[in-house]
Amino acid sequence: MRPTATLSASSSLNYGFPIPPSSSTSFTPTPSPTNCYFHPCAKKFSSLRFKPNKRNITRSAVSIEKEIPETERPITFLRESEGADVRARFEKMIRDAQDSVCAAIEAVDKGGKFKEDVWSRPGGGGGISRVLQDGAVWEKAGVNVSVVYGVMPPEAYRAAKASPADQKPGPVPFFAAGISSVLHPKNPFAPTLHFNYRYFETDAPQDVPGAPRQWWFGGGTDLTPAYIFDEDVKHFHSTQKKACDKFDPTFYPRFKKWCDDYFYIKHRGERRGLGGIFFDDLNDYDQEMLLSFATECANSVVPAYIPIIEKRKDTPFTDHHKAWQQLRRGRYVEFNLVYDRGTTFGLKTGGRIESILVSLPLSARWEYDHKPEVGSEEWKLLDACINPKEWI
Amino acid sequence: MRPTATLSASSSLNYGFPIPPSSSTSFTPTPSPTNCYFHPCAKKFSSLRFKPNKRNITRSAVSIEKEIPETERPITFLRESEGADVRARFEKMIRDAQDSVCAAIEAVDKGGKFKEDVWSRPGGGGGISRVLQDGAVWEKAGVNVSVVYGVMPPEAYRAAKASPADQKPGPVPFFAAGISSVLHPKNPFAPTLHFNYRYFETDAPQDVPGAPRQWWFGGGTDLTPAYIFDEDVKHFHSTQKKACDKFDPTFYPRFKKWCDDYFYIKHRGERRGLGGIFFDDLNDYDQEMLLSFATECANSVVPAYIPIIEKRKDTPFTDHHKAWQQLRRGRYVEFNLVYDRGTTFGLKTGGRIESILVSLPLSARWEYDHKPEVGSEEWKLLDACINPKEWI
Repeated sequence: MRPTATLSASSSLNYGFPIPPSSSTSFTPTPSPTNCYFHPCAKKFSSLRFKPNKRNITRSAVSIEKEIPETERPITFLRESEGADVRARFEKMIRDAQDSVCAAIEAVDKGGKFKEDVWSRPGGGGGISRVLQDGAVWEKAGVNVSVVYGVMPPEAYRAAKASPADQKPGPVPFFAAGISSVLHPKNPFAPTLHFNYRYFETDAPQDVPGAPRQWWFGGGTDLTPAYIFDEDVKHFHSTQKKACDKFDPTFYPRFKKWCDDYFYIKHRGERRGLGGIFFDDLNDYDQEMLLSFATECANSVVPAYIPIIEKRKDTPFTDHHKAWQQLRRGRYVEFNLVYDRGTTFGLKTGGRIESILVSLPLSARWEYDHKPEVGSEEWKLLDACINPKEWI
Repeated sequence: MRPTATLSASSSLNYGFPIPPSSSTSFTPTPSPTNCYFHPCAKKFSSLRFKPNKRNITRSAVSIEKEIPETERPITFLRESEGADVRARFEKMIRDAQDSVCAAIEAVDKGGKFKEDVWSRPGGGGGISRVLQDGAVWEKAGVNVSVVYGVMPPEAYRAAKASPADQKPGPVPFFAAGISSVLHPKNPFAPTLHFNYRYFETDAPQDVPGAPRQWWFGGGTDLTPAYIFDEDVKHFHSTQKKACDKFDPTFYPRFKKWCDDYFYIKHRGERRGLGGIFFDDLNDYDQEMLLSFATECANSVVPAYIPIIEKRKDTPFTDHHKAWQQLRRGRYVEFNLVYDRGTTFGLKTGGRIESILVSLPLSARWEYDHKPEVGSEEWKLLDACINPKEWI
């Protein structure tokens, strides 16, 4: 076993939970299309200015212990003191989801096997990273779960819950658990899938009596094909809608739009792919209901994705198709390295680089001024990335 | 002709001059290894906190007119009012350098031809972008020049030159001209080259009588091979040293280290390549001397690089060699998208995306947890990127 992941926290890769960006772009003319991470305080959090002095650094969420490789998976990554509450049930859910997704991938791939890295931290928390590389069907598939204990800057908490202006609470302990996955198939007609579900809790600041504990859910599942098969995209979105509709009829339209907004490559004026659902900061519903909803979403990954792969994995293709897939993979790289908050934060704070960047495709391509012929299949995909469609 | 480049400003690509980063990372535990852009004020500039309100945005250097495509190259991009001063001589130098580098590339490639886009701005300034794609020797070669008039935030100027604390000068007009180029060959034994030379001037703020006008030079040339041939790297560095030594014996050691520091991929703990020279903020020498120095450096590009290409362009290679080149190209992408200030700024401020990203290779690769065998040729390259060497 090698040393494995540290805090990296991405919505598009391995550590199932996001962390606020380390920098706010004070010169950027328009606000980021991404959404806040620490509900409901994050919007303010991201506009706060912390001077990079030692005090703030040690106070920030970055200060997490170095991980230790483990030879086997523990029954739980939770601290001993915790009982069978939401944290424990969420951890069980994501670990079950990791098992079932990995099993489904291996069953379809019929060649590649996931390589597993287990890690923990002395004070509690840890994770399981699984990567399948150069399989028969997938060129790169990563499915990771993590449980992390950290400390967030008090300003983030105060921004949400008023404490007297002259009162300065200390750092706020937080808990985050999540599953995150990116699956890149080889065949250019078989789409890439990303999903991520996470649960977040803060303790109340110890020195602000009466201040509440907070919790929220976030996540989503989105599809990134190089070519559009209407029936595939409809099946994918319908499966997301079905999961959403079991809980609230407003969820699907709201989270579908949120997804289109989040995976926006601003400098291209395009989305990374054809969307799906994305949500964050969810706490204004019953906690049990949201836990069930996240579970339903995670359980929908296999039925939403695997039938599409079964149908497309062996479709004959030409170099032309492959080159277009590679160009779209280039866009995936651009989104993840430039915009994805978790990735950029992970890179800056010294997360385990191979885990953070397992979300990148095996290969990608950039041609100068490439423009698909109007009306071509490539053009149709690009058009749908520029002008998000309603698929149902 | 299509619409072409807007302000994008990169040390690793087309608009030969850099612009300060749009965000300072207030959470980043260690300072950026990059160097400041607006000498000598930039260090302070980059640590200033501008709230992203409208006033600051319109004041910032971002506010530049939309470019207009031109059907032919003008004699000069300078405003009519300007005479044959340093600006004009620098413009002539970079345009001559563009011609001679492109001619040398085409002569060696014996297949690819540069495609040219000329653009201008109504208020003055413009540029010439040239890209050769899928040639016989180079997969992608971009050589761009630009002349830009803009306005920088007064804080940047004030940080350098004291004006009374209660005095609030307006925005400071600036002028920037530069050449920037990235050349990616096909053969994995033939190295990638990047060079960039730029000249920068500010006017004095009109409402601060007596405040001085400022100017400075920046630039560099660096080599990024996938495999080390000692004689090639020595030849390359020797040519840089020779150019430096004509002006100051301290230049080469100082700018060699600066280059190693700038092209640092922090999350990998590696440099992008084997360095060369890099400098910025240079104004503490005679202006004529620095103009001659920049000219000498630009003129050294062809003798430093072309002999290496001639030697390596037809070397037989295997899939193994190509895959390693592709992995190193992945590092190039990581540096440019994550760290290069000009690229990240250009992406955020709506520069012409194809011009900004022409610096990216045609293709790149990311393998999970790839580790070259200790002692292998791949390992030697990686080792030299982790531990920069003295090549002379």
